Amino acid sequence: MKQPTFISALNVDLLEHMASDAIVARRARVSTNGALVPPKAKDAGLIGMLMRDRHGLPFEHCVFSFEIHCPIFVMRELMRHRIASYSEESARYRQLEPAFYVPDADRKLVQTGKVGAYHFEAGSAEQVIRANFAIRTTSLAAYAEYDRMLVNGIAREVARMVLPVNIYSTVHMTINARSLMNVLSLRVIDSDSTYPSFPQWEIEQVARQMEEAFAEKMPVTHAAFVKAGRVAP
Amino acid sequence: MKQPTFISALNVDLLEHMASDAIVARRARVSTNGALVPPKAKDAGLIGMLMRDRHGLPFEHCVFSFEIHCPIFVMRELMRHRIASYSEESARYRQLEPAFYVPDADRKLVQTGKVGAYHFEAGSAEQVIRANFAIRTTSLAAYAEYDRMLVNGIAREVARMVLPVNIYSTVHMTINARSLMNVLSLRVIDSDSTYPSFPQWEIEQVARQMEEAFAEKMPVTHAAFVKAGRVAP
Amino acid sequence: MKQPTFISALNVDLLEHMASDAIVARRARVSTNGALVPPKAKDAGLIGMLMRDRHGLPFEHCVFSFEIHCPIFVMRELMRHRIASYSEESARYRQLEPAFYVPDADRKLVQTGKVGAYHFEAGSAEQVIRANFAIRTTSLAAYAEYDRMLVNGIAREVARMVLPVNIYSTVHMTINARSLMNVLSLRVIDSDSTYPSFPQWEIEQVARQMEEAFAEKMPVTHAAFVKAGRVAP
Amino acid sequence: MKQPTFISALNVDLLEHMASDAIVARRARVSTNGALVPPKAKDAGLIGMLMRDRHGLPFEHCVFSFEIHCPIFVMRELMRHRIASYSEESARYRQLEPAFYVPDADRKLVQTGKVGAYHFEAGSAEQVIRANFAIRTTSLAAYAEYDRMLVNGIAREVARMVLPVNIYSTVHMTINARSLMNVLSLRVIDSDSTYPSFPQWEIEQVARQMEEAFAEKMPVTHAAFVKAGRVAP
Repeated sequence: MKQPTFISALNVDLLEHMASDAIVARRARVSTNGALVPPKAKDAGLIGMLMRDRHGLPFEHCVFSFEIHCPIFVMRELMRHRIASYSEESARYRQLEPAFYVPDADRKLVQTGKVGAYHFEAGSAEQVIRANFAIRTTSLAAYAEYDRMLVNGIAREVARMVLPVNIYSTVHMTINARSLMNVLSLRVIDSDSTYPSFPQWEIEQVARQMEEAFAEKMPVTHAAFVKAGRVAP
Repeated sequence: MKQPTFISALNVDLLEHMASDAIVARRARVSTNGALVPPKAKDAGLIGMLMRDRHGLPFEHCVFSFEIHCPIFVMRELMRHRIASYSEESARYRQLEPAFYVPDADRKLVQTGKVGAYHFEAGSAEQVIRANFAIRTTSLAAYAEYDRMLVNGIAREVARMVLPVNIYSTVHMTINARSLMNVLSLRVIDSDSTYPSFPQWEIEQVARQMEEAFAEKMPVTHAAFVKAGRVAP
Repeated sequence: MKQPTFISALNVDLLEHMASDAIVARRARVSTNGALVPPKAKDAGLIGMLMRDRHGLPFEHCVFSFEIHCPIFVMRELMRHRIASYSEESARYRQLEPAFYVPDADRKLVQTGKVGAYHFEAGSAEQVIRANFAIRTTSLAAYAEYDRMLVNGIAREVARMVLPVNIYSTVHMTINARSLMNVLSLRVIDSDSTYPSFPQWEIEQVARQMEEAFAEKMPVTHAAFVKAGRVAP
Repeated sequence: MKQPTFISALNVDLLEHMASDAIVARRARVSTNGALVPPKAKDAGLIGMLMRDRHGLPFEHCVFSFEIHCPIFVMRELMRHRIASYSEESARYRQLEPAFYVPDADRKLVQTGKVGAYHFEAGSAEQVIRANFAIRTTSLAAYAEYDRMLVNGIAREVARMVLPVNIYSTVHMTINARSLMNVLSLRVIDSDSTYPSFPQWEIEQVARQMEEAFAEKMPVTHAAFVKAGRVAP
C-alpha cells in the first residue's frame, strides 16, 4: 500500500487562457460603434461603465482554464457553479492516491454565532490536536480498508465508498470571466462587498488563487469588479 | 450519538411536475402551424418525428422536480448534469444523519475486463462479507469521530471532513424533459441503445426511477425516446 | 393576399406553471433542516433572507410557461436571455400572417440625452403622423412583395427576407423564477431598483405582463424581490 | 443618406481561440491517468474513443471566438444556440449601415417537396429576376423611410422597426468546441451524417466557415467528428 500523505495545500494553476481587458473592450464596442476605435486609454472608463450598469456579456468572451488540486468536499462546492466545464479524475477508472487534506494553523476550527453571522476562532490547543488526530486516523483507516478491498478484487467504484471527503482529487475547470466573477462574489470574503458571502475557508483559498490569475490577466476588469462592490455583472 | 443505520435504498420521489405529451405537441405546433389543431391521435406521429429529427426544444417545456435520497458518491455523479437545478442539504448548517449506504445482494462487486467493456460479477461469498464489513466498520468509525469532534466544539464544516462518500444526502432536483432524456441516455443501460453507456450501478437505480416517472407522465414521448435508440434529441 | 392588420398589442398569456412560494420555502429547507417544517407564517422571513443573501437556487424550482405574441424586434431582445426555452413559429415552414406592430399613443417616439441617460418624449403631432405613416406604408409594401414572391413560387425562407422586424411572431417561452427575476431586473424600469435598466418600451410591456403572472403565483417571492431592489438573487 | 449596398457575402473571421487537439487529450487524461503522458501519436485514438462513446466534456475546454457579419434572419437562427456568448451591434445605440443581403447565383430559390424532405432548385430566370428586384426595392424603400424618420427626430429604436430582416448586423460569438460541434451537426448538410439536418442555405454558409476554423485548429477532433457521423458528443 502506498504511504498516505497529509497536506494542507489547495493549489490552483492557470493552464490556458484567452483573456484580456482589450477583448472585453473590443466586444463592448461591437454593440455601440464597431468602426470607431477610441484610444486605449479609454478602455478603463468603458469597462467601468459595463460593470456599473451590469452589462455582463462582453466579459463572457474571456476564458480561463485552471488545474485545481483540492479535497472532494471543496470539489463538491466548486461544481455547484454550472456555467463552467469540469474534467475530473475518476475513481471508477483508477485507484485514488492516498493524499488527504488536514487543516493547517491558518484554518480556524471553532464556529460561534448564528447562520449568516458565523464567527470563527482558532480553537484551543486541545481542539486543534483532537481535530488533527481524528482526521488523520480516520483517513488512514479508510484508505487501508480501500486498499484492502482492491487487493481482494473488489471493484474500484465499490471500494471507494469508504473514502472520506477530505481525499484529494484533481479537476481541470474552464470558465469565462463573467461566470468567474460570480464565483468570486460568492466564494471570497471582502468587507467592501455589496453583498455578504459565507464561503467555507477552503474554497475561499481556491477562489483567491483564481482571483489572482484574473487580476493578472485582466487588471482593469478586476479593478472595476472590486470597485463595483464585487457584484458580478 | 445517534445510532448509525446501513441502508441500500436509493429513493426517488416525484414532488411536482409540469409535464405531458400534450405540452410537447402544443409547442411543436407553434413552429409549424399555430392555428391548426389536428386530432389528438396524431400527437404520437408528431412526437416521433421530433425525436427522430432531433428537434429537442419542444421537450424543454416539460419539467419534473424530484426528491432524491442517495449517498454522496451518487450525488457527485448526478450533479455533473448542469442543465438542472439542485437544492441539497448542507453539512455546513446542520449535522448530517448517520445513514450510510451498503451494497445489497443485487449489487455485483467484482469487475473484469477493460475500460469501455467492463463486466461485473457478484463476487465470492468471502468478497461480499469483506466488502460489507469494510464499509460498515469504516462508516461507524468515521461517524464516531465526526460526532466526537462536534461534541468537542469543532465546526460542522470541519468535522464533516472525515465522513465517507457513502453517507446519505438529500437533494431536490428540477430538470426539463430534454435534459432528463440526456441523463437517461447516459445513466441507464439498455442493450437497444444506439450509443453505449457505462453508468455506475447505484446512479442507474436512481435514473431508472426518474425514467418511471417520465414514462408515466409522458408515455408517448417515452416510447418515442426508446424507439429512437435512447438518443436524447 | 390576406389583408394586413396593424396592432399595438403585446400579449403575454400564462400557459402552464409549476410555481408557488411554498415550493421555494420547501427547497430552502432541504438545505438547512429537511425534517423541521416551521409554521407557514415564517415562509416570508425565509424567502426574504434568501433574496437578501442572494441564495438563488431555491427559486429555480419554480417554472412558468408563457405564450407571447410580439414583433420580431422584441423577440430578438427576449431571446438574448439564454436560461429559458423558446419554441417560436417558423417562417421557413409556413407563411407568416400579415400582422404588423405600430406604436400607440402611449409609446413616446423621440429620444434625447446620452447613452445611459436617455429621456423619451411623445413627439410632435407631425412626428407621430410621419412615424405611423412610414411604418404602415413600409409594412404594406414589404408584405405585398413577400406575397408576390410566394405566388411566383419563391421559397418561403427566401421571400421572408423582405419582411420588416415589426412583423408579429409567436413564441412559447418556459423560464424558471430565478431567470425570470433576472429578465425583470433588466427589462422593467422601476425607480426603486438598485441597478438602473434601459429596456426598450415594447419589451418592457412584455416583461410587465410576465411580472404580473409572477406576482400572482408567487406573491411573497415577488414582494421580496421588489424589496431587495429588484436584484435577481 | 448613405448609399445602400447589396451583398451576398456571409463572412466569418476567427478572432481569438484557445483550442487544440492537445488540450482535449490533456483533459481526457485527467480523468483516467493524470500522471501518465503517452506519446502524442496516441491522441487520435483517445479522441476517437471520446467521440464514439460520447464523452463530450473534454471538448468544452477549447474555445473559439468569431466575428460574423450576416443578415438578421441568419442572426436569429444563430442565436438559438444558447451555449455560446454573443455581443451584437445595437440598433438602439447607433444607426444601422445600409447593407442588405441578396441571394447570389449559388442560392437556389425554389423549394419543392414536403417538410423534412425539401428539395431546392435554382428557379427560372424570371424567378431570379423577380426575387432580386423585390428584395432590392423593398430594402431601398425601407432604408429610405428609416433614414427619413431619423432625420425627423424619431428615436433609432422606433425607426428601425421598418427595416427588413435581410439588413446586415455584426456579432462576436464565443463558443466551446462541444457546443460548436452541435451547431455544425444541425447547420451543415452532409450526406454521411447519422442524423439529417435541414439548415437554411445562408446559415449553412456561416457554419461551414466555422467548421473550417475548427478543422484547422483541431484537425484530429474534426476528423473524429466527421467519422462519428457528425453527432456532437
